[in-house]
Amino acid sequence: MPRIALGQLNTTVGDLDGNVARMTEWTLRAADAGADAVCFPELAITGYPPEDLVLRPEFVRDGLAALEALATATAGACDVITGFVDRDEHGLYNAAAHLRGGQVRARYHKCQLPNYGVFDERRYFTPGTSGRRITIGGTEAGLSICEDAWHGGLPFIEYAGLPLIVNINGSPYHHGKIGEREDVLRARALETGAWILYVNAVGGQDELVFDGGSMVMAPDGIVVGRAAMFEEDLLMVDMDGGSGPATTDHTAAWPAETEEVYRALVLGTRDYVRKNGFEEVALNLSGGIDSTLVAVIATDALGPGAVRVLAMPSVFSSPESLADAEDCARRLGIRLDVVPIGGEVDAYEVSLRPLGAADGLAAENLQARIRGTNLMAVSNATGAMALATGNKSEYAVGYSTLYGDMAGGFAPIKDVPKTLVYELCAWRNAQGPGEGPIPARVITKPPSAELRPGQKDTDSLPPYDILDPIIERYVEDDLSAEEIVAAGHDAGTVARVVALIDRAEYKRRQAAPGVKITPKAFGKDRRLPITNRYPG
Amino acid sequence: MPRIALGQLNTTVGDLDGNVARMTEWTLRAADAGADAVCFPELAITGYPPEDLVLRPEFVRDGLAALEALATATAGACDVITGFVDRDEHGLYNAAAHLRGGQVRARYHKCQLPNYGVFDERRYFTPGTSGRRITIGGTEAGLSICEDAWHGGLPFIEYAGLPLIVNINGSPYHHGKIGEREDVLRARALETGAWILYVNAVGGQDELVFDGGSMVMAPDGIVVGRAAMFEEDLLMVDMDGGSGPATTDHTAAWPAETEEVYRALVLGTRDYVRKNGFEEVALNLSGGIDSTLVAVIATDALGPGAVRVLAMPSVFSSPESLADAEDCARRLGIRLDVVPIGGEVDAYEVSLRPLGAADGLAAENLQARIRGTNLMAVSNATGAMALATGNKSEYAVGYSTLYGDMAGGFAPIKDVPKTLVYELCAWRNAQGPGEGPIPARVITKPPSAELRPGQKDTDSLPPYDILDPIIERYVEDDLSAEEIVAAGHDAGTVARVVALIDRAEYKRRQAAPGVKITPKAFGKDRRLPITNRYPG
Repeated sequence: MPRIALGQLNTTVGDLDGNVARMTEWTLRAADAGADAVCFPELAITGYPPEDLVLRPEFVRDGLAALEALATATAGACDVITGFVDRDEHGLYNAAAHLRGGQVRARYHKCQLPNYGVFDERRYFTPGTSGRRITIGGTEAGLSICEDAWHGGLPFIEYAGLPLIVNINGSPYHHGKIGEREDVLRARALETGAWILYVNAVGGQDELVFDGGSMVMAPDGIVVGRAAMFEEDLLMVDMDGGSGPATTDHTAAWPAETEEVYRALVLGTRDYVRKNGFEEVALNLSGGIDSTLVAVIATDALGPGAVRVLAMPSVFSSPESLADAEDCARRLGIRLDVVPIGGEVDAYEVSLRPLGAADGLAAENLQARIRGTNLMAVSNATGAMALATGNKSEYAVGYSTLYGDMAGGFAPIKDVPKTLVYELCAWRNAQGPGEGPIPARVITKPPSAELRPGQKDTDSLPPYDILDPIIERYVEDDLSAEEIVAAGHDAGTVARVVALIDRAEYKRRQAAPGVKITPKAFGKDRRLPITNRYPG
Repeated sequence: MPRIALGQLNTTVGDLDGNVARMTEWTLRAADAGADAVCFPELAITGYPPEDLVLRPEFVRDGLAALEALATATAGACDVITGFVDRDEHGLYNAAAHLRGGQVRARYHKCQLPNYGVFDERRYFTPGTSGRRITIGGTEAGLSICEDAWHGGLPFIEYAGLPLIVNINGSPYHHGKIGEREDVLRARALETGAWILYVNAVGGQDELVFDGGSMVMAPDGIVVGRAAMFEEDLLMVDMDGGSGPATTDHTAAWPAETEEVYRALVLGTRDYVRKNGFEEVALNLSGGIDSTLVAVIATDALGPGAVRVLAMPSVFSSPESLADAEDCARRLGIRLDVVPIGGEVDAYEVSLRPLGAADGLAAENLQARIRGTNLMAVSNATGAMALATGNKSEYAVGYSTLYGDMAGGFAPIKDVPKTLVYELCAWRNAQGPGEGPIPARVITKPPSAELRPGQKDTDSLPPYDILDPIIERYVEDDLSAEEIVAAGHDAGTVARVVALIDRAEYKRRQAAPGVKITPKAFGKDRRLPITNRYPG
């Protein structure tokens, strides 16, 4: 009757000592609660994904020493299963270790190495060629790592008939992913007849958010217990030895999709800021819906004392926008400074007029760049990380200014389409307090960049409820323009949107990272050449 | 006695029709010159590397149609060997086709797929599992693609005893690469006893430059003929059927290293600008050595009529700097506009002083960002691509301002260490006309960003002849700080430089692409997490 703890930990990439200290603490807690073993996520020693750090031999060496240190520190507690980078004369391995009594008793090498989407594991690792069985509290268990479970081949093919399979993960979030995970685990459970203990990481790492949701999958394909989502959790599982029911000490709810996305954005923003050593953030709050949502996310992530905003009206800014920004800042309890940019605009005019560069697009971008420059000055002077406020629809079609509204260290809603921005605002307001942090007018007024008189987004772009589905089909589904038209969209609009998306690749290449929440985010998920004449 | 042409072509990624048209034209030329066959580079149909374009099914479909179109168009001329993306029910292949009489007679699938450095071929392609023999002008030949030749395994292991092996390439340049290529080809020639016809691409594609240098390697390991470097070339090779000497209609010199790097920078800059549809470039010419070198490269790449520069003195700029910028612009025959930025500085001061953000680092970065903003306004107004002027030493240690001097669509010398900047300037001046385009004082004065009174680079950084070797060891050689110290560098300096490099990762992530000229450039060559506490 083994008792096994699922240690859903928030590690930090490269923080070998910190990760080991935290695993040690949790192992002692689990042992105190009577656990025979505790299971930690994929590459928990190094944090995931360590990327090119693993190409440094001393990083692998130090990680192996950290694994030994964990074994020593937990020798008198209980068994530990954790992820680490292993190496031998053939190469490096994404590996799982079984620690007991101060020793590394078993090593398993991940067989299925993902090399698509955000994953580059073939760049680093050699695939394992067989499974590895261990015994936990008298029960035989097979070890596996993340992608292994997404295939019916190695090592699961060797585990048929085993009572138990441990699957340790660093599985990044996107909306809909939780259901996909359950489906593949169900398929593996039904194939093997085993209980599957699925342990995921939690926390943000650059563009990725690991959402937790560790779970116990029964041999009949039923989830019998689930750890928290978007936070650390230690889930205790009592097994009956293999054939009867398992029980967990608690189980967490699966949030509805809008809440799920919102919590991913909050966690991703908090961890990017904190893990990079920042205490505060600063952003430009225009009174528009995007910057308002970013201010709210930042405040939920870091607290109102850690967020400051600048409102920088120009002659094209409406009084309503400034009033909305002030209202929002008041509701959130964050510091707002009003910094009119007319003086800067006039000074540039003197320089740019003789060069013929003071009108049109140049003049519009200029305002955005003045705001970006002031924001960066505040960031430089205060040590606050600047946040960029653009959404996915804007990044897609290039409706954003390089070095202007794209300026910042992190772009929280970069992967959130505009239509979802509205849904998130409505959801967040419904959580209160009172009528919520977002003034109603911010949600109801027509979107505008306010860079020229009377400007509306729809002057340049199709309405977002038409634009966003086209972007999704082109970017996330890799459909061709013809296929999108065949799906019922207007041919002229599709052609225009696709051309805008292709042409904006150079801007996106210089964008700050943001939280991936869709199946295909801009960034390392989507690697298109800038120089590209297709489809011509 | 086959006559075979090596068609060292400059293709454009995604320009399927254009690439086919050019291959057709060259095939007719080769046939007119009596060739039995012409060989084009790796993935010449699509351009290389097409990156995630190949994940779009219609791109692969259109590429296959383009291959058929090439077969049809060259039916009456001579055989064609060219690279394309193949597909079947198992996946996609990096492939070579043998075209004859309007038909695709043979398809070879690359066996060795590089997935390191700048390469992601396992992301896209399934490896081939065997070689493919064809007959050209009565001589049997084995087909191979690029990385295949860097291994002694498949398909070369099947080609022992064949008279001829064709190796088509998209092999990107870095300094020293030419010698490496000769070494591996020599090894394959000696192992197989075959003549190897090595065809490389030429031209720039985003960060990469393909340097050409196609060659004929004899079975005894001697290079008997070489195509031009850094330009298109059609090299005619007369084979004797296998056992005797081959001859080429011409052979090109292998430039000395400084010239080689300079030509790579010129080609990479020209192709990035032109293939992205730009006619002109604009940059800020400070009178310092970096921006001067970029102005000279741009002028050599595009001609003086296509280059305009801005000199934007502040109160900290020395009169000598402006005089040097004016002198350089005069020597190059390019348009210079002088735009003092005192007005902008004063206007920002009004906004930033009350926020406590008008001094120190914020004030220094502000000047760089004003210059970046004016440059971008000129770019927006004129359609000229802005060029960033930073060098590799600066990008490494973060001695550069985001949205300031890092602003621009392309950063020509981003991978050039400062010490090499000096060498390149000396080499370029020696080419003339006269004493060359670079004023002597630009080379002799101590480097300074001129962002505060009396500032010198050495106030913040070690001298470049100390800094650059540390950067090279840490970035390109992946050595640890301890190993660098063991190689004879001062421990305190190494610790400081390594920390600076690690901390500047977030800036580099937002940098424009530039020409890769070292074995490891910043960009897709080096994929480090931003969030990273190693070594702590």
